[in-house]
Amino acid sequence: MEVQQLQYQSIGVVHSPFTQQAGTPVQPSHDNATQGIIEVAPQYLDALLDLDGFSHIWVLCHLHQAKPAKLSVTPYLDNKPHGLFATRAPSRPNPIGMSLLRLQKIEDNRLYVVDLDLLDGTPVLDIKPFVSQFDNREQSQCGWFDTAADHVSTADDRFV
Amino acid sequence: MEVQQLQYQSIGVVHSPFTQQAGTPVQPSHDNATQGIIEVAPQYLDALLDLDGFSHIWVLCHLHQAKPAKLSVTPYLDNKPHGLFATRAPSRPNPIGMSLLRLQKIEDNRLYVVDLDLLDGTPVLDIKPFVSQFDNREQSQCGWFDTAADHVSTADDRFV
Repeated sequence: MEVQQLQYQSIGVVHSPFTQQAGTPVQPSHDNATQGIIEVAPQYLDALLDLDGFSHIWVLCHLHQAKPAKLSVTPYLDNKPHGLFATRAPSRPNPIGMSLLRLQKIEDNRLYVVDLDLLDGTPVLDIKPFVSQFDNREQSQCGWFDTAADHVSTADDRFV
Repeated sequence: MEVQQLQYQSIGVVHSPFTQQAGTPVQPSHDNATQGIIEVAPQYLDALLDLDGFSHIWVLCHLHQAKPAKLSVTPYLDNKPHGLFATRAPSRPNPIGMSLLRLQKIEDNRLYVVDLDLLDGTPVLDIKPFVSQFDNREQSQCGWFDTAADHVSTADDRFV
């Protein structure tokens, strides 16, 4: 298998009250309605047209403070190690995060979001609308998450 | 805002019956149970441990055949233009796809998946488990998707 080198440029940046991983929510759905702003580079302003009709958006980010990946990790929500690709841990070969955020309003190139789980200064790669028809799965089995030992809601420093 | 240059390496590749965008399903949930294989590079074998407990996985890919991005696009599912970030069109500033696939089984470094909407040879960036607690949203508004004019299920060549 040929390894492909892939190059991207950030299209925006996250403004968040969280400046370090310890204490930051581990997932949007665990969060305490933390507010923040996704600032999109001005040249993409027209690409935001009609996004305000969506209540939720996917924000793909470069998790810039994640440590190098390990193949086996003990995630926040369990006390046993699992294969990295069976977890949502931020330290990954390609540290790309998928955050599902509530969109409150858009002012110019600034998206006001709620449920934020991202650190201040996180580079943004892409924004996609959440579409229930595509993204919801009513029936799913979720492996170790279904029986996880711990259900903490905020991060510590294990992946920084 | 500072533009960040981000470099990734593929961690795997998609084996798919689809070799061109025209005729390929536009989203996994529209698909006809197409089967395929996600081949993960052998050095990541241990990172797959416990992934087989999940019925669905997110596969983040580099959409290698997408055309350069335009800020306004007429997507497959409507007959009116929308801002690019309000669509799931593959031609994006950073052409990263999020495919939610059903996982049938894992044999060594090969993930057998169903509902495939990806082209053969697509480089894979990341694999994450689908976790209903994180990824489902029971109540959402989906903008123009909720009232879209067209509901085609396969792509044509507009983004190639």
